[in-house]
Amino acid sequence: MTTHTGHTRAIPASKVIDTAVYNTAGEKIGSIEDVMLDKTSNGIMFAVIGFGGFLGIGEKYHALPWSVLDYSPETGGYVVPFSADQLKAAPAYSIDELTGNDGHLARDASYSYFKVDPYW
Amino acid sequence: MTTHTGHTRAIPASKVIDTAVYNTAGEKIGSIEDVMLDKTSNGIMFAVIGFGGFLGIGEKYHALPWSVLDYSPETGGYVVPFSADQLKAAPAYSIDELTGNDGHLARDASYSYFKVDPYW
Repeated sequence: MTTHTGHTRAIPASKVIDTAVYNTAGEKIGSIEDVMLDKTSNGIMFAVIGFGGFLGIGEKYHALPWSVLDYSPETGGYVVPFSADQLKAAPAYSIDELTGNDGHLARDASYSYFKVDPYW
Repeated sequence: MTTHTGHTRAIPASKVIDTAVYNTAGEKIGSIEDVMLDKTSNGIMFAVIGFGGFLGIGEKYHALPWSVLDYSPETGGYVVPFSADQLKAAPAYSIDELTGNDGHLARDASYSYFKVDPYW
């Protein structure tokens, strides 16, 4: 279970996974499916949210910069400062594409699209 | 399942969790129970390996710097360059203590004990 207590500044990856994501209008966008970690830089590359598909088949994923996720104790989920339309038009990938080119492809396109300063 | 394919430089947290950890002598030390993420710095704080306890009761955990984990395709696990004795004497924490003080307590003690340069 995701609890408020678990969402301190230090947060176990297992508690992040399956947490709901909302936009600032309060619409549920999806859930965190995974968190992509960089073995070489010690950096958190991006959070992965899934959408579409059925039972995982044909599902597509967005890469979200870790820093944009703002935990909301009221909803028990994360809030991101993007509209539904912005998210709909965001770069989308299959699960395999997310790790392609060591994740740099999805990461770089996401940071650029969402206009987030690179951490690297 | 943990597969070699999943262990590229970009690695989903879900694939790291439950991966076995060995020392350089080939002894199994434990498994990755979780990965502690820093919400403020975008950094991976440490990997969490558990030992002792029974069905999670009374279990204690070590914090391992992310950078020391070396994936070994032969074993399908991570190898760390520490002896069994070094690990036995490493700082140990309850699950709650790991996130205490925003994780800085466990993180700093671990990096100091294992003589790993801080990433922060």
